[in-house]
Amino acid sequence: MKQSIKSIDFSKGDGLVPVIVQDADTKNILTLAYSNQESLELTKKTGKSWFWSRSHKKLWMKGEESGNVQVVKNILVDCDSDALIYQVEPKGAPCHTGDSTCFHHSL
Amino acid sequence: MKQSIKSIDFSKGDGLVPVIVQDADTKNILTLAYSNQESLELTKKTGKSWFWSRSHKKLWMKGEESGNVQVVKNILVDCDSDALIYQVEPKGAPCHTGDSTCFHHSL
Repeated sequence: MKQSIKSIDFSKGDGLVPVIVQDADTKNILTLAYSNQESLELTKKTGKSWFWSRSHKKLWMKGEESGNVQVVKNILVDCDSDALIYQVEPKGAPCHTGDSTCFHHSL
Repeated sequence: MKQSIKSIDFSKGDGLVPVIVQDADTKNILTLAYSNQESLELTKKTGKSWFWSRSHKKLWMKGEESGNVQVVKNILVDCDSDALIYQVEPKGAPCHTGDSTCFHHSL
């Protein structure tokens, strides 16, 4: 089923929803970030992954500094509309450490 | 690298971190839930996936009512220690709707 941005529930997370970024090809999970309505609209409009930075309190596009942009192939929504997956084609390293995923430690 | 539970940063999410639940075999993303320190300790101790329910404000184990437990094979931590992946072997449907994933809508 197709949903619209208006149906996303941003209220539980003070205007934000968590976004899982997954490699559309390998299915590896690359990172977890946050989106508000505006960054989600920018993602839909530009086809690149946009987020809201909780630490810098501003919109950011993945790769705006590093050049390692992510082309968004699909956006998935969960059953209660409060979490998203961006399925992407990554250009360059997804993690600021230069690694191929942000999830490089185990517990 | 191996990290301990003490190194997880629960402060940014008011005591909670988002947990991506991923099928250890197929790499499909099953759901996104939240964990506090106690549910993370229970997950490590029992090898089943435990979470904190934001809506019911209580600890819960996936499958405690449905029987559809998740055996946790690995727990991954991201580069700033504020998001987790439980890689699991699901027993039965991961979603309360009976579906094979909670992410069954697209945007």
